[in-house]
Amino acid sequence: MQLSKRLTAMQESPIRKLVPYAKQAKAAGKHVFHLNIGQPDIETPKSFMEAIRNFDEEVIAYTFSEGIPELIDAMIKYYKKYDMHYEKDEILITNGGSEALLFSVIAVCDAGDEVLVPEPFYTNYNGFTSAVDVKVAPITTTPEEGFHLPDRKAIEELIKPKTKAIILSNPGNPTGVVYTKEEVEMLASLAKEYNLFIIADEVYREFVYDDLEFTSFGNIEGVQDRVIVVDSVSKRYSACGARIGSVATKNKELIAQMLKLAQSRLCVATLEQIGAAALYQTEQKYFKSVNDEYDNRRMILFNALQEMPGVLCKKPTGAFYMNVKLPVDDAEKFVIWLLKDFDLDGDTVMMAPSEGFYATPGLGRDEVRIAYVLKEDDLKRAMQVLKTALEQYPGKTV
Amino acid sequence: MQLSKRLTAMQESPIRKLVPYAKQAKAAGKHVFHLNIGQPDIETPKSFMEAIRNFDEEVIAYTFSEGIPELIDAMIKYYKKYDMHYEKDEILITNGGSEALLFSVIAVCDAGDEVLVPEPFYTNYNGFTSAVDVKVAPITTTPEEGFHLPDRKAIEELIKPKTKAIILSNPGNPTGVVYTKEEVEMLASLAKEYNLFIIADEVYREFVYDDLEFTSFGNIEGVQDRVIVVDSVSKRYSACGARIGSVATKNKELIAQMLKLAQSRLCVATLEQIGAAALYQTEQKYFKSVNDEYDNRRMILFNALQEMPGVLCKKPTGAFYMNVKLPVDDAEKFVIWLLKDFDLDGDTVMMAPSEGFYATPGLGRDEVRIAYVLKEDDLKRAMQVLKTALEQYPGKTV
Repeated sequence: MQLSKRLTAMQESPIRKLVPYAKQAKAAGKHVFHLNIGQPDIETPKSFMEAIRNFDEEVIAYTFSEGIPELIDAMIKYYKKYDMHYEKDEILITNGGSEALLFSVIAVCDAGDEVLVPEPFYTNYNGFTSAVDVKVAPITTTPEEGFHLPDRKAIEELIKPKTKAIILSNPGNPTGVVYTKEEVEMLASLAKEYNLFIIADEVYREFVYDDLEFTSFGNIEGVQDRVIVVDSVSKRYSACGARIGSVATKNKELIAQMLKLAQSRLCVATLEQIGAAALYQTEQKYFKSVNDEYDNRRMILFNALQEMPGVLCKKPTGAFYMNVKLPVDDAEKFVIWLLKDFDLDGDTVMMAPSEGFYATPGLGRDEVRIAYVLKEDDLKRAMQVLKTALEQYPGKTV
Repeated sequence: MQLSKRLTAMQESPIRKLVPYAKQAKAAGKHVFHLNIGQPDIETPKSFMEAIRNFDEEVIAYTFSEGIPELIDAMIKYYKKYDMHYEKDEILITNGGSEALLFSVIAVCDAGDEVLVPEPFYTNYNGFTSAVDVKVAPITTTPEEGFHLPDRKAIEELIKPKTKAIILSNPGNPTGVVYTKEEVEMLASLAKEYNLFIIADEVYREFVYDDLEFTSFGNIEGVQDRVIVVDSVSKRYSACGARIGSVATKNKELIAQMLKLAQSRLCVATLEQIGAAALYQTEQKYFKSVNDEYDNRRMILFNALQEMPGVLCKKPTGAFYMNVKLPVDDAEKFVIWLLKDFDLDGDTVMMAPSEGFYATPGLGRDEVRIAYVLKEDDLKRAMQVLKTALEQYPGKTV
């Protein structure tokens, strides 16, 4: 039986494909420090389960395709804190940020169209774009430049008639980059000049360090008809399993059209929306404490990596990832070796090889993404393990 | 700003687009009997919320992209009761039946391909196929034939090189048809001869009346590598708002490829999966009582409709819908008139005009879908209202 080309050609998740090696390592009695996946260990605010436990309708019924009013209202209030002003008919609740991105791409691209994406990028951008026949054209960024954008002219040269949008995550996954106000404004100006949409994945909005100012695409004047802001409770409130995301845009026609997509899948899970509405009412001080925790972890990782010969990593300033250049022949081989052939007194480390985060063939082969989603002591130990592994790895290049 | 053609060309939900008229009717003080939407009033088994309330993990984390093992195991046991034998790696949990259908279509069709679908059909088949550039080619069925299939030759003539699959709901939404064993075997044999997949939407499997035998595509030998069975807890356990669906197929390569789609949206909501796992452990006697209730409603509706001059409706034998031909000029106009200009002592009725359920232009213009999802007394009153309305409607044709 012949399956579709668009599915068979689709990239397998580079984050998930090495899972069998991790299972084997555990079966062999090793302890694996998981730095490979962005699953925070931070407790989900209790308000989430409390709201759900209080649900007492007799029938778990369909809700509105656009999302339940309590959640949309809570999001409107949340955005106001960031000087972003959306109305009720300018927000759609989605099955995670994933569906928000999928709907956005379908809404602005026909089959054969292209989207510009700074690489390395969140690997699933590849997944849903190829599922709907849209091509990712990469804007290459480098570890040496801390993954900041190239200049306007370099990006301009990548824009073709079929280019319909720029998609980017800011703060960045997998890079931890936070784009400057100038970078955000430069992209906005390009979008205006070349009539592009901007799909701004800002699910890590609160995770910005070093007292940097975060500039949302939702705050740039003159382009709000072309900006789609994608959000999610997954990282913001450590509720990845809730699968509650959203799109927000001042372009009412766009939301009205996207509502047809939302209607075609009827609605998003009722209970999880009720929980998410409670989450969005969490006080801002929650972010301060979570932020301090991640910041501490970031510095532990960053300082430890600085001491490893041949490792290149500019200090990342956002999200909870860093994309690190290692002195190895091939990062995927190295990660497999870590799981199969190495341990330090029973401990080993799992990271995500970065090649899958790049669209340009060959790039990222000696890079890994490290997620700092473990507690301080575990991170310190993981870094000891990594340091020793780099010294012993047969394919090391220093 | 230019939106994609595939989205702007997408049909608006014919079920949901008349909702503003219903809101106006209610604002004007009328009571509206909602026969327009398949939202059952049956209580969701309490096991659903009990299982969820007992969840006590501190972090609402990602789960497996393919679904949680408890739910997959519960579904394997459920299918065994129907002599369908799936293994763990032959089932994927999805965001409702909707995502199951979307994934199935992406998996077997490239942009530009076609699927055969008996019309009238579940309107959302239009939605997600057009979102991914797949065309629906209708197999026309008629109220006069009780919506049973035309003969093999008539269907054969519709098959083109670009035809990749047959999609059908059995028992049928919006028709209430239950295909005979001969019809199911005929489609299976066509699929084999012309190398097509069969996407069998069997979410109403338990809702079959008159002691008819239901034949699942999952029970037909010799075609299991090309059969995808789509299921959902929405109607089965009156849990529409849970958004838990699934695909099951003996084609392991197909499931392995579809897993990439599942990975690109990470996972389905954790809590709702836990609840669904409890639902799938419901004893079979639950279906008996629900079935009796729907059967009773069906006969109330059917008998009442038989007494209305000019109304054509063969007795439907499954699901909880009937697609009825009315003696009116235009069913959409009639439904709007019911909401705007008519009431019987303050009561009116809302139904879904059927034209949107057909792909062939012009068909179904004098038909409506009626969902029997209200209690006995309400249905009886709704039928009185409908009878009087048909007598008074200015556009009546008898």
